[in-house]
Amino acid sequence: MIPDFVITELVDRALAEDLHAGDLTTEALVSAEARGIARITAKSPLVVCGSRILARTFYQVDPGLRVEEHVNDGDLAQPGDLLWLAEGRTRGLLMAERTALNFVQHLSGIATLTRSYVDALPKGSQTRITDTRKTTPGLRQLERYAVRLGGGHNHRDSLGSAVLIKENHITAAGGVKPALDRARQHAPHTSRLEIEIERLDQLSDALAARADILLLDNFNDADVEAAVKQIKGRALVEVSGGISLERIPHLAALGVDVISVGALAHSAKAADISLRLESLSQG
Amino acid sequence: MIPDFVITELVDRALAEDLHAGDLTTEALVSAEARGIARITAKSPLVVCGSRILARTFYQVDPGLRVEEHVNDGDLAQPGDLLWLAEGRTRGLLMAERTALNFVQHLSGIATLTRSYVDALPKGSQTRITDTRKTTPGLRQLERYAVRLGGGHNHRDSLGSAVLIKENHITAAGGVKPALDRARQHAPHTSRLEIEIERLDQLSDALAARADILLLDNFNDADVEAAVKQIKGRALVEVSGGISLERIPHLAALGVDVISVGALAHSAKAADISLRLESLSQG
Amino acid sequence: MIPDFVITELVDRALAEDLHAGDLTTEALVSAEARGIARITAKSPLVVCGSRILARTFYQVDPGLRVEEHVNDGDLAQPGDLLWLAEGRTRGLLMAERTALNFVQHLSGIATLTRSYVDALPKGSQTRITDTRKTTPGLRQLERYAVRLGGGHNHRDSLGSAVLIKENHITAAGGVKPALDRARQHAPHTSRLEIEIERLDQLSDALAARADILLLDNFNDADVEAAVKQIKGRALVEVSGGISLERIPHLAALGVDVISVGALAHSAKAADISLRLESLSQG
Amino acid sequence: MIPDFVITELVDRALAEDLHAGDLTTEALVSAEARGIARITAKSPLVVCGSRILARTFYQVDPGLRVEEHVNDGDLAQPGDLLWLAEGRTRGLLMAERTALNFVQHLSGIATLTRSYVDALPKGSQTRITDTRKTTPGLRQLERYAVRLGGGHNHRDSLGSAVLIKENHITAAGGVKPALDRARQHAPHTSRLEIEIERLDQLSDALAARADILLLDNFNDADVEAAVKQIKGRALVEVSGGISLERIPHLAALGVDVISVGALAHSAKAADISLRLESLSQG
Amino acid sequence: MIPDFVITELVDRALAEDLHAGDLTTEALVSAEARGIARITAKSPLVVCGSRILARTFYQVDPGLRVEEHVNDGDLAQPGDLLWLAEGRTRGLLMAERTALNFVQHLSGIATLTRSYVDALPKGSQTRITDTRKTTPGLRQLERYAVRLGGGHNHRDSLGSAVLIKENHITAAGGVKPALDRARQHAPHTSRLEIEIERLDQLSDALAARADILLLDNFNDADVEAAVKQIKGRALVEVSGGISLERIPHLAALGVDVISVGALAHSAKAADISLRLESLSQG
Amino acid sequence: MIPDFVITELVDRALAEDLHAGDLTTEALVSAEARGIARITAKSPLVVCGSRILARTFYQVDPGLRVEEHVNDGDLAQPGDLLWLAEGRTRGLLMAERTALNFVQHLSGIATLTRSYVDALPKGSQTRITDTRKTTPGLRQLERYAVRLGGGHNHRDSLGSAVLIKENHITAAGGVKPALDRARQHAPHTSRLEIEIERLDQLSDALAARADILLLDNFNDADVEAAVKQIKGRALVEVSGGISLERIPHLAALGVDVISVGALAHSAKAADISLRLESLSQG
Repeated sequence: MIPDFVITELVDRALAEDLHAGDLTTEALVSAEARGIARITAKSPLVVCGSRILARTFYQVDPGLRVEEHVNDGDLAQPGDLLWLAEGRTRGLLMAERTALNFVQHLSGIATLTRSYVDALPKGSQTRITDTRKTTPGLRQLERYAVRLGGGHNHRDSLGSAVLIKENHITAAGGVKPALDRARQHAPHTSRLEIEIERLDQLSDALAARADILLLDNFNDADVEAAVKQIKGRALVEVSGGISLERIPHLAALGVDVISVGALAHSAKAADISLRLESLSQG
Repeated sequence: MIPDFVITELVDRALAEDLHAGDLTTEALVSAEARGIARITAKSPLVVCGSRILARTFYQVDPGLRVEEHVNDGDLAQPGDLLWLAEGRTRGLLMAERTALNFVQHLSGIATLTRSYVDALPKGSQTRITDTRKTTPGLRQLERYAVRLGGGHNHRDSLGSAVLIKENHITAAGGVKPALDRARQHAPHTSRLEIEIERLDQLSDALAARADILLLDNFNDADVEAAVKQIKGRALVEVSGGISLERIPHLAALGVDVISVGALAHSAKAADISLRLESLSQG
Repeated sequence: MIPDFVITELVDRALAEDLHAGDLTTEALVSAEARGIARITAKSPLVVCGSRILARTFYQVDPGLRVEEHVNDGDLAQPGDLLWLAEGRTRGLLMAERTALNFVQHLSGIATLTRSYVDALPKGSQTRITDTRKTTPGLRQLERYAVRLGGGHNHRDSLGSAVLIKENHITAAGGVKPALDRARQHAPHTSRLEIEIERLDQLSDALAARADILLLDNFNDADVEAAVKQIKGRALVEVSGGISLERIPHLAALGVDVISVGALAHSAKAADISLRLESLSQG
Repeated sequence: MIPDFVITELVDRALAEDLHAGDLTTEALVSAEARGIARITAKSPLVVCGSRILARTFYQVDPGLRVEEHVNDGDLAQPGDLLWLAEGRTRGLLMAERTALNFVQHLSGIATLTRSYVDALPKGSQTRITDTRKTTPGLRQLERYAVRLGGGHNHRDSLGSAVLIKENHITAAGGVKPALDRARQHAPHTSRLEIEIERLDQLSDALAARADILLLDNFNDADVEAAVKQIKGRALVEVSGGISLERIPHLAALGVDVISVGALAHSAKAADISLRLESLSQG
Repeated sequence: MIPDFVITELVDRALAEDLHAGDLTTEALVSAEARGIARITAKSPLVVCGSRILARTFYQVDPGLRVEEHVNDGDLAQPGDLLWLAEGRTRGLLMAERTALNFVQHLSGIATLTRSYVDALPKGSQTRITDTRKTTPGLRQLERYAVRLGGGHNHRDSLGSAVLIKENHITAAGGVKPALDRARQHAPHTSRLEIEIERLDQLSDALAARADILLLDNFNDADVEAAVKQIKGRALVEVSGGISLERIPHLAALGVDVISVGALAHSAKAADISLRLESLSQG
Repeated sequence: MIPDFVITELVDRALAEDLHAGDLTTEALVSAEARGIARITAKSPLVVCGSRILARTFYQVDPGLRVEEHVNDGDLAQPGDLLWLAEGRTRGLLMAERTALNFVQHLSGIATLTRSYVDALPKGSQTRITDTRKTTPGLRQLERYAVRLGGGHNHRDSLGSAVLIKENHITAAGGVKPALDRARQHAPHTSRLEIEIERLDQLSDALAARADILLLDNFNDADVEAAVKQIKGRALVEVSGGISLERIPHLAALGVDVISVGALAHSAKAADISLRLESLSQG
């Protein structure tokens, strides 16, 4: 659940991009009293995401607009399905349209792509698909929500919520063991200790220094298999880097715990959603 | 040129997502005095976009960091090319890394995709490729910049800068002619009058009412050809909707003036760019 | 129509100036439970502007306050006319009073001045009176709205919405023709191309290079007449600079299309509007 | 002295109005490398106000721009006087121009009008001219500064800094004496107690209840004279409402301490200031 | 009364600290439909402060939450007393809980400490206890409100609302008399003139130069007594610096007008308040 | 390390509270050209915290001010020690003084209190002292920094960074085991699973369900001892609630891993720090 104040702030900022100088066309052509109904429908199969954001977008333009939700976030919609219906003064409907659609198309796109990765997991698999911090600047909280709606999990939300030791940190700390020791000593006790492994020969040091999670970075399937065997459940295994949809079933079968996929957020295509307006009265 | 204050505000907001609680790992493992050099390189062919944003991202984390630009925005880079080099305290370099990359990967992705559309135009073609208002919420000004860097043009930036009469407006105004007449009467004289055409039989009315630009929405190639013939240069011709890369050469050959492509902004994949840190001193 | 989120943000910022430390007098003298009615009336003839802003100002101080609109924006009011009536807790009424009045006095002042220019046009004239970008910092969207309410038109809203080539641009581009050519090549196709003309001898070049709008800067009436004759309808004619109310009829009679007047926004006097409070109960 | 962070915030907000979508014309016509010098000069006699704001405006667009101040705030300038000179990349100069001028024209207009009121005081007069809270929404701190630069004084800055009891408060408190007593009891001891007098017969109560300042609201000259005689220096005397420039000498001669003039801020005309750009190199 | 827009802004900022990445635990364990009642009770004797802030905190997370106020701000509560009751979706209740409590514990702590100082005054004493500008960054308006709720008074709210001449100013002005003269000449006439006295021998100069308030800084009781005798009611007497609760009765008995205590805001302990949730339905 | 943009935003907001209307006294008494040196010294033993914030506060008022740091954050200072020295225009020094001190007094107060808790641990103890989410609204990141400077550790920074299951969550989930199972299933794999235990008899369930951290809430020393014995190192042990300084040595001796103390942030007294100004020139 995204708190209401977060949504409002994001919506206001996005609306400002489109409406900082009003809407020339609508003001010239549509009477202030005209009323209408906007039907928002799916044009391709998609996982719905962004109901409350869409509703808030119409509201921030004109508090007199009313939005009906015909789906819940996370539902799978088929082309032609009615998703939402907005009603009220036509001017407000037209002024909010593009911004509202930009939000739900972006988020539903991410939810839909995530779902395709999750669906590629073998039945009953315990492996989880997660996002990364490779998110669109300014939209991280929304995009993480979309990933969850698509059946995925979130990775740490920021640099301040959990420890992930990367190659540069290992170098700075003088090796795998001192890196993990210093992290254990300084970081909040609430965070697991994750360390990025770039070569198989780093594994034993990381296990000896009691890493909680091993992130195998850019490993091919054979190396992942070798790593999982060596780890033997002593740490969670995460793989990342160059993860295509095709590799998911095999990686899951190897017993990997977590597959993190930056593309979920940064390379999803916008879902196809459209709005049709029906005039109720010309005002 | 994006004004400096715009960049600063966007950078601060994006950094806050990653650093609202500091950087647990870096603070635990990297000394406050350690210094390093970060080399940022292309991992795939791309059109570079975002130099000043990247530099500002490092600066806002630590004003002591220094960034060298080895490319200019708009340059074509090949895998392995050094794009930027940042130098200073290692902590700041690591804390700014992900946000800086998220910006330039997103923007270079858009510039690169735009370039592929522009390159698909026949040599010497006068047809232009433009973006639409289907942009990522909060990033419109940056994304429009990326489209220009990729050789594309911008469409109107917002609802307040130019007139574009859509089906809903025509209905509200009572037809094509009254719609154009009212727009001509009320909208700023600096705006051309563009009208969206959904069927060939609307063309003659729009021309009679002196539309400046005709937007052919979701027309197939045959209908575009028929329209162009009927229009005979009396208005600019724009096509939009369902524009794949493959259609570009033919549409250009038909003499279309503008091809607007929402996918440039909302469905580009992030460009592949990575940062490697070299330690200068451990502090 | 100004979107609600825009109004809210402007109102909050203005209220903060007056209430960052509360209201010493009201808190000391007025009981928290006291209720009253505030009658807001015109004290001089004016064009009403700012109803929704006024209502929002009271609401942001105390959501329990209720505002009745006795006029519509754009109405002409005479001294003594009741414009708005606000009702609720007296404290909130008094705390919001000055900020609410500052908004509507400023905006109604602009609308009223604009109306006087528009009324100076000959009956049936097609000439339009517009604002310029010489607006009060921070209030441009509101002031443009006030100009429309007064019967005027808006010019381009910002540097990003339409092309206007000024002397400095001509110099930079190397002449009138290269300037217009480059603008035609690079700027969005939705913008007309306007060019500022400082001397009659620049006209022919501008017409030859197909400028859409010619802005005659600081021309006296004789030169305007000469220019209009030379242009012969091949471009829209705008005059600007040193426009007094007295010149309007003659300029319109000459067939000028647009008269842009910076003074509408930057030199209008505040309209005279006052608030009287009637006590309903002392709490 | 206005703190730097205040200026920066106001400047950023104003620039956003003009540059939220960049500058179409400048980007199309001016090379990124072109450099120039902008000379900003007075076109009418004026009291200069806003040097640091102007400099900050150029800086926020492009930190590489440099501004030379040829005058100090508060100086009297004559038509033709060079006020400021800005130098650097031509694009930045042109993009910041209008916003920078809007600030200094507005503020110098207020300073100049204030000076005319102050100059209307008899030589050696102890009477002060002050502003009121009738300021432009969002610009109060700047406008108060402009009033001081013009030789005027400021009234209380907000509802939270000093007590001013108006008719509505008197009614709410049940009379002049209880109003002053409650204010004395509850308000900060750092504030003088000012009370608005609408009729001569309220004077004796206000004096008996030890008001520090008596605000004579909308009194004609004869009534002011009567009031001053009755007050005999037991309280400061302020007059407000319907104050024209012509009344100043007589009011001062009557021994009034303070003349507060809302028009200083809300009805000043913008000062006439222009910018001319000289090209240094075309880039 | 704190205006609603002020509260909303403070609440949003505080909520962002806790919810920038949602609430992992609540989202994992509590169904979106589950509903509950939160009872918020005092755990120690306290002066209640922050009712509207608490209600707004729940509202900004979920506008569907409803808060009942069982106390008024300023009431004295005993351990076990029910203060507020919030009802609605369990997720929202849990997500807002900590931020809401942080506000009311902080503010009630200040109100409670203030009350203890006020209660230490002799019965019927005219001496007032005030805060200072030593407040928590970002919370001044709220903390000043809490002081009033505890029975204290506010000092000036900021550097811009009243004159207080300190040692550094005296030095800069060249002595007590020139300092007061310049302040009288330049500062708003609405402000009393207060001057800080560090030694008894400065008193006569300050009185001669007609200071309105004398601030005795870090005086011991004997020196305060000497000063009060010398001042003889010609100015208000304020003492500050090293004020313990134990000194209050004696200082009041000496006839001091104002005792200003920085500790009210900067060193109060948080009041002990807790929230217990009762489940209404599991959703 | 707190990123620079975070500090700037906090400083601007705090300065606005004191300077929204300028500084009446300083502007009246101090010449714009006067220069001085401000020496900021400790008046009581304290752990220094806030150097960069203090420097930024002066800078945001006047970028011409220069600050020398004579201590590092985390140093122990004795009464009389010079901490920082600021130099430049006297006006800026005086205008920034109070806000700068408010920051460093608040943060040094927290660092100093934290140090006293850490110093109460037995030599060589592995027990850590942590903060909680009971922080001052708006200042969490700064206060967490101060706790680290004092030798303490941070707990999770927000609801979004780690799982902590409280009584209300257990109830909602239907018991300890389902609660931990659902958390393990849904929450990011980077977070340890912490659960709050209110009674000894809940321990075995929590251990069986593989909690990573057990938070013993309001346990007395005897119950803590019993719990530690039962846990036998199978989970980290945290104690919280009613932690006085006196209990620290015994709790540490019992082998508790973490002692979390809300009072560090919400009930620390401001450290005593003062600024003395020396005039360099009167301007």
